[in-house]
Amino acid sequence: MFIQRFEEITILTNGVNLISLTDSIEKFVKSSEIVNGILNLSILHTSASLIIQENADPDVQKDLINFYDKLAPMSNDLYIHSTEGKDDMPSHIKSSLTNTNLAVSIKDYKVQLGTWQGIFLFEHRLERQKRKVFLHIIGEK
Amino acid sequence: MFIQRFEEITILTNGVNLISLTDSIEKFVKSSEIVNGILNLSILHTSASLIIQENADPDVQKDLINFYDKLAPMSNDLYIHSTEGKDDMPSHIKSSLTNTNLAVSIKDYKVQLGTWQGIFLFEHRLERQKRKVFLHIIGEK
Amino acid sequence: MFIQRFEEITILTNGVNLISLTDSIEKFVKSSEIVNGILNLSILHTSASLIIQENADPDVQKDLINFYDKLAPMSNDLYIHSTEGKDDMPSHIKSSLTNTNLAVSIKDYKVQLGTWQGIFLFEHRLERQKRKVFLHIIGEK
Repeated sequence: MFIQRFEEITILTNGVNLISLTDSIEKFVKSSEIVNGILNLSILHTSASLIIQENADPDVQKDLINFYDKLAPMSNDLYIHSTEGKDDMPSHIKSSLTNTNLAVSIKDYKVQLGTWQGIFLFEHRLERQKRKVFLHIIGEK
Repeated sequence: MFIQRFEEITILTNGVNLISLTDSIEKFVKSSEIVNGILNLSILHTSASLIIQENADPDVQKDLINFYDKLAPMSNDLYIHSTEGKDDMPSHIKSSLTNTNLAVSIKDYKVQLGTWQGIFLFEHRLERQKRKVFLHIIGEK
Repeated sequence: MFIQRFEEITILTNGVNLISLTDSIEKFVKSSEIVNGILNLSILHTSASLIIQENADPDVQKDLINFYDKLAPMSNDLYIHSTEGKDDMPSHIKSSLTNTNLAVSIKDYKVQLGTWQGIFLFEHRLERQKRKVFLHIIGEK
């Protein structure tokens, strides 16, 4: 029988960082009692984003952060939109380069990820933020 | 009861720009009579794309356009593929950096977007274009 | 009647390249006997990715490869994470800029793609690799 389940989770962030959502997502999938289905993730913001990336070496995350910071530097001289701080417009750009929405597959109660893959919230802003991620699964019990 | 609904919408564009699709999408969702479901959006082109971005300050859109234009400049000297105009290859690149396909969640007849989020067609070409976006929803009536 | 079908396909790659998955995907869709549905694709790696791009002029693919190579050059001097080879960290970056997961729509047994669109695996690493892509469709028979 096909059913749907929803949950909104809140993640407190504290500066530019990658924060693993894998455990929270797996917990939600288990609680949904859905064996097989599609899980759609939506971050309800445009200055933080979602990515599936390496979960092993933390240096990969540092290099990712550095790369995006060089690509869209935090400098008010570069952007027209500067009233919300030098980190705001680069955050919108980084968000557009990664993902706001991600669909992942569930099979046998498990999120289909590779051995080295994790799902992360990518925070792009410097100050503390309260981020909402909407989890939504359609599948069979 | 789970059902599916489809619609292909056509958007006329006139140069590099972000064009809001949020109203058209919400109209389609209402007409589908689906309460909860997943809406998949596909742009059927590779020189325009889809993004979820800030819907408030128009300067954010100008900065996004400027950023992508600097990243993949319109110049035939930079690319092998130049027969379709100096804006064609950069358009393919910009399309690959953003999204051709986007899955969003519907709950209580509403597209799950944050307060400051809108869904946009991102036109990358200089001349007038006729763009097709395929809307497809699976959900419960 | 709504059903689900799954398949994991393996693609052998040999250096940086775009490899068309369109035929394999269409074959899977046909074999699934699903008329209308959503097909979710997941690449189970973080140094190769998925993109929907031009399927006509091979120069577009060369320009895409060149663009991403310039954007995230293969050089150990640029990254902290360098133990897995000069091509590994750039591969993670290129993967984060494109897609690990892609949802496409199926209508009347057909993947909804534009005339010039194909679905590709984008290999970012230099050495031979064995890549797994998970295909998952929810739809109606």
